[in-house]
Amino acid sequence: MQQLHPDDVLWRNARLATMNPEEPAPYGLREKVALVVRGETIVAIVPESELPATHAHQVDLEGRLVTPGLIDCHTHLVFGGDRAAEWEQRLNGVSYQTISAQGGGINSTVSATRESESQTLLKRAEQRLHRLMQEGVTTLEIKSGYGLNAQSEEKMLRVAQTLAHNHPVEISPTLLAAHAVPKEYRQDPDAYITQVCEQIMPTLWREGLFEAVDVFCENVGFTPSQTERVFQAAAALGIPVKGHVEQLSNLGGAALVSRYHGWSADHIEYLDDAGVSAMAHSGTVAVLLPGAYYFLQESQRPPVEQLRKQGVPMAVATDYNPGTSPFASLHLAMNMACVQFGLTPEEAWAGVTRHAAQALGRGATHGQLKEGFVADFIVWDAERPVEMVYEPGRNPLYQRVFRGKVS
Amino acid sequence: MQQLHPDDVLWRNARLATMNPEEPAPYGLREKVALVVRGETIVAIVPESELPATHAHQVDLEGRLVTPGLIDCHTHLVFGGDRAAEWEQRLNGVSYQTISAQGGGINSTVSATRESESQTLLKRAEQRLHRLMQEGVTTLEIKSGYGLNAQSEEKMLRVAQTLAHNHPVEISPTLLAAHAVPKEYRQDPDAYITQVCEQIMPTLWREGLFEAVDVFCENVGFTPSQTERVFQAAAALGIPVKGHVEQLSNLGGAALVSRYHGWSADHIEYLDDAGVSAMAHSGTVAVLLPGAYYFLQESQRPPVEQLRKQGVPMAVATDYNPGTSPFASLHLAMNMACVQFGLTPEEAWAGVTRHAAQALGRGATHGQLKEGFVADFIVWDAERPVEMVYEPGRNPLYQRVFRGKVS
Ligand SMILES: [Zn+2]
Ligand SMILES: [Zn+2]
Repeated sequence: MQQLHPDDVLWRNARLATMNPEEPAPYGLREKVALVVRGETIVAIVPESELPATHAHQVDLEGRLVTPGLIDCHTHLVFGGDRAAEWEQRLNGVSYQTISAQGGGINSTVSATRESESQTLLKRAEQRLHRLMQEGVTTLEIKSGYGLNAQSEEKMLRVAQTLAHNHPVEISPTLLAAHAVPKEYRQDPDAYITQVCEQIMPTLWREGLFEAVDVFCENVGFTPSQTERVFQAAAALGIPVKGHVEQLSNLGGAALVSRYHGWSADHIEYLDDAGVSAMAHSGTVAVLLPGAYYFLQESQRPPVEQLRKQGVPMAVATDYNPGTSPFASLHLAMNMACVQFGLTPEEAWAGVTRHAAQALGRGATHGQLKEGFVADFIVWDAERPVEMVYEPGRNPLYQRVFRGKVS
Repeated sequence: MQQLHPDDVLWRNARLATMNPEEPAPYGLREKVALVVRGETIVAIVPESELPATHAHQVDLEGRLVTPGLIDCHTHLVFGGDRAAEWEQRLNGVSYQTISAQGGGINSTVSATRESESQTLLKRAEQRLHRLMQEGVTTLEIKSGYGLNAQSEEKMLRVAQTLAHNHPVEISPTLLAAHAVPKEYRQDPDAYITQVCEQIMPTLWREGLFEAVDVFCENVGFTPSQTERVFQAAAALGIPVKGHVEQLSNLGGAALVSRYHGWSADHIEYLDDAGVSAMAHSGTVAVLLPGAYYFLQESQRPPVEQLRKQGVPMAVATDYNPGTSPFASLHLAMNMACVQFGLTPEEAWAGVTRHAAQALGRGATHGQLKEGFVADFIVWDAERPVEMVYEPGRNPLYQRVFRGKVS
């Protein structure tokens, strides 16, 4: 018989998709078991047959499916302004040049973010956060990167902090000051990188405003050597790194991230075999962003077969942002990862649980239903995990539990 | 001054996307006007300046955007069973042959539909209908086509009838008995067509169970000559026709539909110039189904530029069905039509309002905010119609009005 504390909460008669790879069944499925939760933690998973019939605190799940809380490990959830009108212009045949000359593209989001009050940024981000939470997201990453100066990057990260404070979700904030060259530095991007390395990053790190540093390494972003300067400065401060890499071309960014033992290399449509090997070697997670691939109608798919072969963990995220992925639905991202990239539904689920946790430095505490892990989980009115992947929008969410508490 | 009856309801301070092509602004936009509704009908659109300050029945919309109710003109909303597990098998590498040998594919839906009680079909279809209604759908088409015999086709159409009875939406039911060759007729598809023409269609038509007849004209469906037999029999009874045509190959199905003055030719990825001309000549609507194109990862796009040039009205629909388009979201379909096929957001909106109405034989009464039209409309917490297209899932629906009544 399982030893129970009087205060333990038993979530009984559950079908657990534990997502624990040590369990033999697909999805780590375990039937007719109870989750034993003590405070904020899962302390055991016990077969119903080994439990007493009654207990002070217990919930009968009537055979419902339970999964770990979903984790969206790559988002740009906080920003000012709106790019819908610009998107409409493009579809109406207005050229990129004209839109750019109007101040469109990422520059318009940077201007609007700089000009926005924190309260406005917060309110807009909250609406997006609610949509993610409605689908069962319990942990998410939020990047800065539309401020591009110390003050506005700080403003974005403080909005992320407030979101975490006001909601039961856990937020992993990322400094993406090296998202684009701000217009003040157009003639001297290296000087901006110096500013990031010597001012923005150390200052905001001391304030405890982020957990990792990200760089957009691309022809339209920063060069590999600029990227490496940021990574070196981060390493000196003990800050984990990650990168937007190999989205539009192959600059060897994933290998660079791997050399710095980065948490994740994201996008990676143009990743080559050497890059896959480097990631496998360093344990860097491949974060697939099928929403942007869809919205931009790209044709180069990430090398899923190679990633599988070499055992690189694959995560799936929304990449929610106004320019290239305006979809605040992780279920849709899972569907798109299967439909467009050929992931299996089980891989898509690992991508928003176990592997997404790993991509946020939380692989030992989040993303699995397992003894010792945080009690973030979702109860679904569904029989099989494939249902949320096959039919996004149906959303059979029944109950959400954040750190042991229903919310 | 506008003459008002005491019982007229004024929907005041609206921004109307009338979708009336006679209005000069994009989306037929009119600002600072009121919709005057008498009973179930729009009787006038009047500038605020021409109205008295008060009236017995008035609603202040505070400048909100109002559009016609959305119309989903192609769905297979009623069916038994579930194809999620089969989809997962395919992604796990199980071959079509193996799945087919297990009784998978459309045959599994036919078996499950035949075996299902009407109540079960109704309950499942109701869940899907609610998702469409939540996005502002006020009229939709529902096809039979998973019964493939008189009794089960009738059962499906009666479920559609019950749905219409229990909900404020308007439903246009379609007989799609010629959706696939039922297994009983595998050796003699022509005999099944005879059964459709001489038994199923005339009997169910006399019962008033459908408004139009549809045929799947394709190598994996029915030949053009089989299709024409159905159209001839329909013509003899005065039944409007439409077709699933040119989805996987070009058999000249759209031209055939046009020859019979069909309401719509649907899918049409492989439509050629002659087919476009035939449709333009007959006034047949081109129904684009981007959900199936996405789910099957097709690469042949419908000839949007040609359709535009020749003035063929384009509608956009979900094609909701368990095998190739499990997405009960017309907003997502609009997004996919823009992203994948290059429609403008205004064309996508016309595709779910004015042109969708035309595809259901309701072009003179539905799909526009216009004097004499049915008072089906949606109030949105949005500024511009592009918002629902750009960001599906956000759904700024504020209020739904079905035939003059809030619901
Ligand atoms: Zn990103
Ligand atoms: Zn169809």
